[in-house]
Amino acid sequence: MVAEAQRVLGIDPGTSVTGWGIVEGTSSTPRRAASGVIAFSSRTVLATRLQRLREEIERLIRLHRPVAMSLEKAFVGRNIQSAFRLGEARGAILIAAAECGLPVFEYSPAEVKLAVVGYGRAEKSQMIRGIALRFSLSNLDHADEADALALGLCHLQGALFQRLRRVGQTR
Amino acid sequence: MVAEAQRVLGIDPGTSVTGWGIVEGTSSTPRRAASGVIAFSSRTVLATRLQRLREEIERLIRLHRPVAMSLEKAFVGRNIQSAFRLGEARGAILIAAAECGLPVFEYSPAEVKLAVVGYGRAEKSQMIRGIALRFSLSNLDHADEADALALGLCHLQGALFQRLRRVGQTR
Repeated sequence: MVAEAQRVLGIDPGTSVTGWGIVEGTSSTPRRAASGVIAFSSRTVLATRLQRLREEIERLIRLHRPVAMSLEKAFVGRNIQSAFRLGEARGAILIAAAECGLPVFEYSPAEVKLAVVGYGRAEKSQMIRGIALRFSLSNLDHADEADALALGLCHLQGALFQRLRRVGQTR
Repeated sequence: MVAEAQRVLGIDPGTSVTGWGIVEGTSSTPRRAASGVIAFSSRTVLATRLQRLREEIERLIRLHRPVAMSLEKAFVGRNIQSAFRLGEARGAILIAAAECGLPVFEYSPAEVKLAVVGYGRAEKSQMIRGIALRFSLSNLDHADEADALALGLCHLQGALFQRLRRVGQTR
């Protein structure tokens, strides 16, 4: 029982910094194909930043040709204003996905942590270390980039779980 | 001291219903040129709704050629999840503005209420009545449409206030 190899774009959105990661392979042999951050100066007008974020995500989709986008499901955060700002960045990213016909999958923070370190209530630092180990990265200073790779990985593993579950239900 | 005539697009964003209103003229003679709502079924995938919302706003901008977009500044709401959703719709609308090179202005709920009924802590029902009276509309059932017209009106009045203020500062 082997899941098919896939290429997934994981994204950790933000209006100032957005992390992204292309994870490919199967759930048992995940590889990092590419990753990075898209950062904007806060002096740039918000509407322009969102428009550029959308363009940049579309460029990544056309360049790497993933079969799915993986996003965090819930807002885990401090206050209403940051939820509001994060929603704006998500809007730009979801529009890019729709523009390219890319299906979007969402995972809860606990599902992502479980996929990366096998424990749904892991700390942020454990997550970053887990991702660095998993993809043999010596330096991964950016938490947003690690989160994006974690989301990509979570979708690859989810694909196997979903298939097992589907088989369990129908046979 | 007369402010120039302008045409403003006021928008009250939402991922299921977005109100819009084109208000033109000067602060002393505002007219409603057009208004309405853009509504989507919640069965439509979120990314597709946001993409269509962006397209629809761009169509309105190209059709009516406003010189400014007027949006509410803050999130006045119930919970983090609605702030998150509202942010997504705002993202789509801000991208449409950036795409068309339209400058965006934001007003606080108190500023909008002050512009419409002369009282910053007015009730929602007073606002809707105020807008219906102001623009001689017999039926205006949609609160989102009334809010959008109120935002357009607020910008027209703000244009005069800003000019007076600017004159006060420089002369």
